[in-house]
Amino acid sequence: MGGYGWISLTTDYGTFDGFVASCHGVIARIAPDVRVIDVTHHVPPADVPRGAAVLAQTAPHLPESVHVAVVDPGVGTARRPIAIGTPNGVLVGPDNGVLIWASEVLGGIDEVVQVANKDWFLGDMSRTFHGRDLFAPAAAHLATGAALSDAGPSVDADTLVRLADPVVAVGDGWLEAEVMTVDRFGNVQLAAGGATLRALGADLLIGGNVRARRGTTFQDVKPGELLVYEDSAGRVAIAVNGGRAVVVLSVRPGDVVRIAER
Amino acid sequence: MGGYGWISLTTDYGTFDGFVASCHGVIARIAPDVRVIDVTHHVPPADVPRGAAVLAQTAPHLPESVHVAVVDPGVGTARRPIAIGTPNGVLVGPDNGVLIWASEVLGGIDEVVQVANKDWFLGDMSRTFHGRDLFAPAAAHLATGAALSDAGPSVDADTLVRLADPVVAVGDGWLEAEVMTVDRFGNVQLAAGGATLRALGADLLIGGNVRARRGTTFQDVKPGELLVYEDSAGRVAIAVNGGRAVVVLSVRPGDVVRIAER
Amino acid sequence: MGGYGWISLTTDYGTFDGFVASCHGVIARIAPDVRVIDVTHHVPPADVPRGAAVLAQTAPHLPESVHVAVVDPGVGTARRPIAIGTPNGVLVGPDNGVLIWASEVLGGIDEVVQVANKDWFLGDMSRTFHGRDLFAPAAAHLATGAALSDAGPSVDADTLVRLADPVVAVGDGWLEAEVMTVDRFGNVQLAAGGATLRALGADLLIGGNVRARRGTTFQDVKPGELLVYEDSAGRVAIAVNGGRAVVVLSVRPGDVVRIAER
Repeated sequence: MGGYGWISLTTDYGTFDGFVASCHGVIARIAPDVRVIDVTHHVPPADVPRGAAVLAQTAPHLPESVHVAVVDPGVGTARRPIAIGTPNGVLVGPDNGVLIWASEVLGGIDEVVQVANKDWFLGDMSRTFHGRDLFAPAAAHLATGAALSDAGPSVDADTLVRLADPVVAVGDGWLEAEVMTVDRFGNVQLAAGGATLRALGADLLIGGNVRARRGTTFQDVKPGELLVYEDSAGRVAIAVNGGRAVVVLSVRPGDVVRIAER
Repeated sequence: MGGYGWISLTTDYGTFDGFVASCHGVIARIAPDVRVIDVTHHVPPADVPRGAAVLAQTAPHLPESVHVAVVDPGVGTARRPIAIGTPNGVLVGPDNGVLIWASEVLGGIDEVVQVANKDWFLGDMSRTFHGRDLFAPAAAHLATGAALSDAGPSVDADTLVRLADPVVAVGDGWLEAEVMTVDRFGNVQLAAGGATLRALGADLLIGGNVRARRGTTFQDVKPGELLVYEDSAGRVAIAVNGGRAVVVLSVRPGDVVRIAER
Repeated sequence: MGGYGWISLTTDYGTFDGFVASCHGVIARIAPDVRVIDVTHHVPPADVPRGAAVLAQTAPHLPESVHVAVVDPGVGTARRPIAIGTPNGVLVGPDNGVLIWASEVLGGIDEVVQVANKDWFLGDMSRTFHGRDLFAPAAAHLATGAALSDAGPSVDADTLVRLADPVVAVGDGWLEAEVMTVDRFGNVQLAAGGATLRALGADLLIGGNVRARRGTTFQDVKPGELLVYEDSAGRVAIAVNGGRAVVVLSVRPGDVVRIAER
């Protein structure tokens, strides 16, 4: 039934070992015509919400794919390996929440199955490397056209593990939101959607005492000044023109930041 | 009109976020048969000369490609997005100098256009991520055979932003040159071309007091000794056999180093 | 005669410079239909045993390939560039031991040749970048179907440089083994094969005073406790549930670790 020409990989494996290459290799052996896009392999070890966020922000820009996400501190335990069908692709990974946000941006959950087809697993399956031995081969079989129902029994979507929603609160002239991520440029992305910004004026205070301005691009403020803007993922973010907002604000993912009119 | 089978990417996006994968995805959606070579995504943030240098030193070894370089501290401002046609490939990126040195090694500038075709841009173009929303789609369209003139209006090559030439001075028995880059092995590459070495003897002083020898390979000197040689990019470089020249010399890109006969 | 659809690359080049991309480019120019899997480019500079180990642990999971390994502190000296034929792929790299362990896991050495065919080398071969100028083009020619004997003269396998075997000793209720590698999760892999574990009981001491348990997956022990297990490469390894064994044990590659029943 068609299948997919592409598989994406999102892991916390890093690139110093051969883990990622082994996943590429397993896919190439099963599905040699399928191509792989590496989303990132630098999710901080075991940081499930970070893996979930980076996949959700990237997947809409990829071709229709089987998206594999392996941030899996429970590997080898009873946590279920699952595959989620959506209107715009399939998601494969552990049932620990890492796939949930991506399923929402891909149009919602159509169908969930537990990946349990032992014919698909690598012969001598390890207890500690399901990326190579279970998730990559399952993705490869699904990409070559296997039906979701071939992967294993149906799972009730209501039983899936879900992540806590990040904190977002909006009031009259202010918003408070959790830091989702800090990118390579030191820009601080909040969980609040960009639309929440429209109710705020141009002159803002962050955390009560740091002055900032609302704008759309880094050079809407002078060098060294702070900008509050809607970023390329549609979230509220804070940047410094020519600098690193993360240093100025001294925050990290999970902290809550308050932005208010001044 | 032919087009190109390959696109290369050179950015300062890093690989911890999904930025690079989004560019791959946009290319895959528009030009699924085109293949991508990542030159590097670890240009130091906003370091335009470093991005220009690494692309210029790598592009001649790639197949004929559309080369995209995005080191773009002025994203979202009036700086022009451009595409440069050369006899050996096309270059796409911001008009801030990052493409210039590559255009020279690819045979010179045949034609320049401003990338302005809104039909090519991603629907809801962000102000801060032109790699995904403007440069990657433009490169994909050019790779699939679109003419440069389809991208937008012609630009006078004399109006392009150019980088300052790095310092190189050569005299009788000496040369002075700016440090271009320090590679993973601690080798220090200077801006001077390798031919400038031929006028020097074998026994050299670096910076007036560090002894070195001219040679061609690391083991032309004893372990721990300094070697001055023409590197694989055709530049004068300084290495230590079994060590790191950057530590011995304590220099960084932009510093000027003097090499003289002793 | 067939050739190979895939080339793998294992180097110490890092990804900050354009070295890896140049190798990809050279391959693409000679063998445009061949696809490349990057095993890793983060072998510590000049660490030949580490390069040999990561390739040997990864290659069995890749499709039949020409595997290129370039960890080559002797580049430009008399060390021989070689290609090794095995029943399950070809290995290309310097004769310094980096290919040996992979040749064993791929079924043993069928044939060795010195890579000496000057028609294959890049025109103006550098003395310091044989990855781009010699090994990548040789691999590309072999992948497109050239015979090993076209690469150059036969080499007696008994003359190949070999690495010292890592320390492994097993006694009644104990084993001692060298640390092979520490992965991104802080798990410590020993040189001992997983089978050596079966003779040990469940309650163990590491290094005489650190308590650990034998098991198969991280959650066989409580959070913070140490686990001794057979890892996904079939080696004895030490992990901490939710922590980093490398920190608890304070070891690094080359150290010898003793595990004994308590």
